[in-house]
Amino acid sequence: MTTSTRPVPDACSAAPSLIALDWGTTSLRAYLYDAHGVPIDTRSRAAGVMHVPGGGARAFDAVFEEACGDWLDRTPGLPVLAAGMVGSAQGWREAPYVAVPAGADALVAGLITVTTARGATVSIVPGVIATGDLPDVMRGEETQIVGALASDPTLGADRSGVLIGLPGTHAKWAWVKDGLIERFQTFMTGELFAVLRDHTILGRTMRAGASPDRGAFVRGVAVARGARHTGLLATIFSTRTLGLTDRLAPDAQGDYLSGLLIGHELNALDAMLAERGIALADQPLLLIGDGGLCSRYVDALQVFGHAHARVAAQATERGLWRIASRAGLVRADGEPVCADQ
Amino acid sequence: MTTSTRPVPDACSAAPSLIALDWGTTSLRAYLYDAHGVPIDTRSRAAGVMHVPGGGARAFDAVFEEACGDWLDRTPGLPVLAAGMVGSAQGWREAPYVAVPAGADALVAGLITVTTARGATVSIVPGVIATGDLPDVMRGEETQIVGALASDPTLGADRSGVLIGLPGTHAKWAWVKDGLIERFQTFMTGELFAVLRDHTILGRTMRAGASPDRGAFVRGVAVARGARHTGLLATIFSTRTLGLTDRLAPDAQGDYLSGLLIGHELNALDAMLAERGIALADQPLLLIGDGGLCSRYVDALQVFGHAHARVAAQATERGLWRIASRAGLVRADGEPVCADQ
Repeated sequence: MTTSTRPVPDACSAAPSLIALDWGTTSLRAYLYDAHGVPIDTRSRAAGVMHVPGGGARAFDAVFEEACGDWLDRTPGLPVLAAGMVGSAQGWREAPYVAVPAGADALVAGLITVTTARGATVSIVPGVIATGDLPDVMRGEETQIVGALASDPTLGADRSGVLIGLPGTHAKWAWVKDGLIERFQTFMTGELFAVLRDHTILGRTMRAGASPDRGAFVRGVAVARGARHTGLLATIFSTRTLGLTDRLAPDAQGDYLSGLLIGHELNALDAMLAERGIALADQPLLLIGDGGLCSRYVDALQVFGHAHARVAAQATERGLWRIASRAGLVRADGEPVCADQ
Repeated sequence: MTTSTRPVPDACSAAPSLIALDWGTTSLRAYLYDAHGVPIDTRSRAAGVMHVPGGGARAFDAVFEEACGDWLDRTPGLPVLAAGMVGSAQGWREAPYVAVPAGADALVAGLITVTTARGATVSIVPGVIATGDLPDVMRGEETQIVGALASDPTLGADRSGVLIGLPGTHAKWAWVKDGLIERFQTFMTGELFAVLRDHTILGRTMRAGASPDRGAFVRGVAVARGARHTGLLATIFSTRTLGLTDRLAPDAQGDYLSGLLIGHELNALDAMLAERGIALADQPLLLIGDGGLCSRYVDALQVFGHAHARVAAQATERGLWRIASRAGLVRADGEPVCADQ
């Protein structure tokens, strides 16, 4: 458990106005917002959707009570909004996917609610689905995208829109225009890296380095870029053969493999853009996610000639607040709500 | 442990002439040959190179003694030949790789020997290395290729040579001409399939079917073929999303994923051939390996327009015998060696 409290600017705006939950597969993060949409308290729990003891609605309720019950004791009637895998079939209650193109309004229209044992109402944000021959889905990332757009309303307003990358276990790339997620693609890059390192022959010769080896990472990206036709199944084996031939040190092999995988992800992105007549290097591009991982993607994009990627800050917190505002759970974006108003 | 004995044709040719070991990462298979190069006894042990208790030369010697000691008791002085990971740095003794182009003669020239505690001499076949920007290696497959060529001396004699596929944990595709392995490429297809099924989210919704689902497999191959630019990292996620949208039954997901991976392997093979101006569909092609797996590849190749793949039988046994003959460990190919000759 971690708890952090920010300095409170004044008594009025510090009045809690919203509890929001980023409840994913592996963890729960809870935010308490002031009336300006600034988180004044944050809590993390390891009880992700796959780790809620026993599962089922009662178990989710119990985790929620343990994490946020005292906030509701102090401010009864606070609205609660949740996003992420908590709205999946394995979550607290299923919030059916909304189809692309989808923006904040479609997410608000798709909110479903669940009433807790103490009588609090929790609104759950739906995920987004792209149907077609090969369907694709997201849960949680839609809220981050809304948050990134909230911080810069001009994003994605030009002709080609903006490409938003969300690195991670299941990395997503979304094409966003005029506030709508038009289409997106999932890449299992993060999960594949973890299983290759932990469960295949490639991990056997790896040693953890003292710090990330940026050179080895960029080398992997460049190798993947040069071997786009040879593909991932073949190039990953070079992690082993370069080691066998003393051309890749054990403590560089992990970063090299990470570069290979992210390089192949960008090969695919590049090809998907090329099919639409767009050059990756010219495409406005925003990254959302863990700082260290986004920094790897910035390096990898440079290998592909893209030198102007930006990284969005606090996309989750902003997205949750934005959706709560649009849904009328809080009075309005940034407008203070005080007892004496 | 398994033991099988074939009918012995006559007393002369039944005299044992060679012990040969196919000693790979996960298992040891030992063959006792008659004077015609026909295996008259076969034994399997789970003591693959990664499972030899304790490791080290003494441990390998002990496993060998347990498996083959009685053969040597009965026919002292029998020559012994071994191929596979037993010749790697983690094996009994390292047999340095020989470089492509390499055929039976180069393998014979690269044999190294180890003397056992009882004084038997074991000759170990070297692996093959393709050097270059991304080196590649094989150990054991070179012996199978020699065996396939031994069964049909016209193979690979025409202008374009023959393409030999060896499906498995680390699938290999080798270009062979005039008896020489000219180049080859490893694909981690089998190992990747196993870790995706056993350790990622894709395995969670899979159920084992009563029998292989050929339709789901071919569907996966076709999807991969149609998504060659989108690549493996993206298309594998469709195993999950097609399941989520009720378009792929749990008991079909494993075969679908297998089809996706083998389809991406063939995408790469197709592209590598195209770079040399060769169409996969027109390429003479031979498969070596497990019957069920080769049958999958035959199906997958048909999706790629290749309808004339052949499957080689007993490539390992024939390759070991052929190399022993060339090395002079046995008198000559197929020539009977009798006590009274």
